[in-house]
Amino acid sequence: MERRRFIARGTAGATAAAALAAPNIAGAQGAPRIRWRCPGSFPKSLDTLYGTQEHLAKRIGEMTDGAFQIQVFGPGEIVPALQVMDAVGGGTVECGFTSAYYYLGKDPSLAMATCLPFGLSTKQHWAWLTHGGARQLYAEVYRDQGVVAIPAGNTGSQMGGWFRKEIRSVEDLKGLKFRIAGYGGNALQKLGVVTQQIGGPDIYPALERGVIDGAEWVGPYDDEKLGFNRIAPFYYYPGWWEYSPSVDLMVNARAYEQLPAAYKAILEAACAESWHWMSARYDVLNPTAMRRLIAAGTQLRSFPREVLQASYRASQELFAELGEQNPRFKRLHEQWDRFRTDQVQWARVAEDSLANFLAVATAQR
Amino acid sequence: MERRRFIARGTAGATAAAALAAPNIAGAQGAPRIRWRCPGSFPKSLDTLYGTQEHLAKRIGEMTDGAFQIQVFGPGEIVPALQVMDAVGGGTVECGFTSAYYYLGKDPSLAMATCLPFGLSTKQHWAWLTHGGARQLYAEVYRDQGVVAIPAGNTGSQMGGWFRKEIRSVEDLKGLKFRIAGYGGNALQKLGVVTQQIGGPDIYPALERGVIDGAEWVGPYDDEKLGFNRIAPFYYYPGWWEYSPSVDLMVNARAYEQLPAAYKAILEAACAESWHWMSARYDVLNPTAMRRLIAAGTQLRSFPREVLQASYRASQELFAELGEQNPRFKRLHEQWDRFRTDQVQWARVAEDSLANFLAVATAQR
Repeated sequence: MERRRFIARGTAGATAAAALAAPNIAGAQGAPRIRWRCPGSFPKSLDTLYGTQEHLAKRIGEMTDGAFQIQVFGPGEIVPALQVMDAVGGGTVECGFTSAYYYLGKDPSLAMATCLPFGLSTKQHWAWLTHGGARQLYAEVYRDQGVVAIPAGNTGSQMGGWFRKEIRSVEDLKGLKFRIAGYGGNALQKLGVVTQQIGGPDIYPALERGVIDGAEWVGPYDDEKLGFNRIAPFYYYPGWWEYSPSVDLMVNARAYEQLPAAYKAILEAACAESWHWMSARYDVLNPTAMRRLIAAGTQLRSFPREVLQASYRASQELFAELGEQNPRFKRLHEQWDRFRTDQVQWARVAEDSLANFLAVATAQR
Repeated sequence: MERRRFIARGTAGATAAAALAAPNIAGAQGAPRIRWRCPGSFPKSLDTLYGTQEHLAKRIGEMTDGAFQIQVFGPGEIVPALQVMDAVGGGTVECGFTSAYYYLGKDPSLAMATCLPFGLSTKQHWAWLTHGGARQLYAEVYRDQGVVAIPAGNTGSQMGGWFRKEIRSVEDLKGLKFRIAGYGGNALQKLGVVTQQIGGPDIYPALERGVIDGAEWVGPYDDEKLGFNRIAPFYYYPGWWEYSPSVDLMVNARAYEQLPAAYKAILEAACAESWHWMSARYDVLNPTAMRRLIAAGTQLRSFPREVLQASYRASQELFAELGEQNPRFKRLHEQWDRFRTDQVQWARVAEDSLANFLAVATAQR
């Protein structure tokens, strides 16, 4: 995912946003009636990301017989795509559906809450958020922004993007003009990549005209919609900068505190369901999209090990630099990294060993 | 997990079970008041499995301000461990927390709903259950048993068990006395293993006295409690027969139909949260348990590729035999296997490639 894609066409709507409505509680006899507005960062054209925002609101309505209603908005309808956290924290709206790493300029720890390069798999990420203590640890990071964040979506592993030429070595990265956003871009800059942030609709023409040599977006299902395969034949993996980015339902801290306890529990369970609903949706949609892309001529390539190794080292350097600048990032990153190391070692034994066997056995049938 | 472990000490309680209580609905003004009893198949000593049953009931209580209360019971308290589905289907209790594969003797498709040898990873399993259509497809399988099943727990990848001697070849399996339950055992029998079903508390003495040469249970955290490491030095992986076994909240079909729509939605979200709550709990607890085991002398071993290949072939033979005996199993298995193949190919690209890189990079630091 990326930032600029979602900035466009949003600013006008901000002025239309009304002030935070006081909760409308019907009294002890019936279920408290609450109406929240929920702008999101993800275009309505993405039935994966925006679709989850809709699913979440629908589920909460079902669970409360319509008493707790969340009205969802696409980016720019009432709040610009990348100002959702600000609008929630400031009380313009009660909640929003967005990813914390869009706001890493305010605090690098917000990026970690979403994902970091060479980070956690979807399953590891969920373990970290729940029994791994991350929700508690990151509460202060979100509190600084005036919000309570409940993890509510995850794209699963993204792809490494589209390239006009093959990447055979670290040397091939030098001077490469690549559209990418976030800390993955900062790491690639250390290897000589000239990173560019270009909005979604503008990527295709930029790639076609040679303004850029490559671009990353999400994965097969979402990427296919933008048609990159027609002008960039090589589709690379893994997308090491976005192994498992998380989406939050961010709730205004005061609005959250005023919620009845039952509605807090309902939000928790509904968001947990939505987090995995999104990941599952990607898992079901991506394989068939990948087959269509390959049938249309896309050539799948793995980044060479040397490129991954250099990218990994560059990412570790970046984390060290961010830690030097920001003591809280350093403290939180140490916890994250210990957790990650434990999980990688455990997954290698019980899960990955079988996944690797099945990859070969299934292909050979 | 296994069957016999849970049979013990349960039969007496069955007579104590009362008939299905009529729902107590307080009326349109307040939340309908419902009291359900929920026996489970998992011993209270397992804070992972039984802990999830407690978590689920607590969450549903929180979400309804105590109006929808589910009282949980351990195996044998009111229903024997492996008669939970029967008690739910027959209306002795309103719901139960159990795994469908305990009842594969009634219908082989029930095993598929939980897990099959060389099956789906946790993430794939969830995708299959939700957007993969499995919930709809398997509704008829459960309906035959008088229940509606909502997936509510998952152990993640289990281990391949404890052995007194190393397994270096398929030859080493011949005549090996191994404690295992379910269809994984049927597949191993084809390779000459003498499988035995032994209850949890009896495994240790059987292994110590040489009655059996090896035993599988769950994974590091649960296995450690039974002390197998003191008498069987070799701990094998992967546990290909239980890649990601699922636990269901089974609800009596009539009780389910009488639920208000809001409570059905609440059950869905709460069970989805619990499914992943359990998996995350295992992921957080297993790595440290594994470290303790290894520090105490356990030797970790991977099954040789030749053994995995032979086991895979034996499992495919078993599926074909089950399909010949049961047309519905054949039909459902074909859908399952297509889904699995798609998922394996997709995971290999975006997720496993990064997992494998990180396994090496993290170990080298």
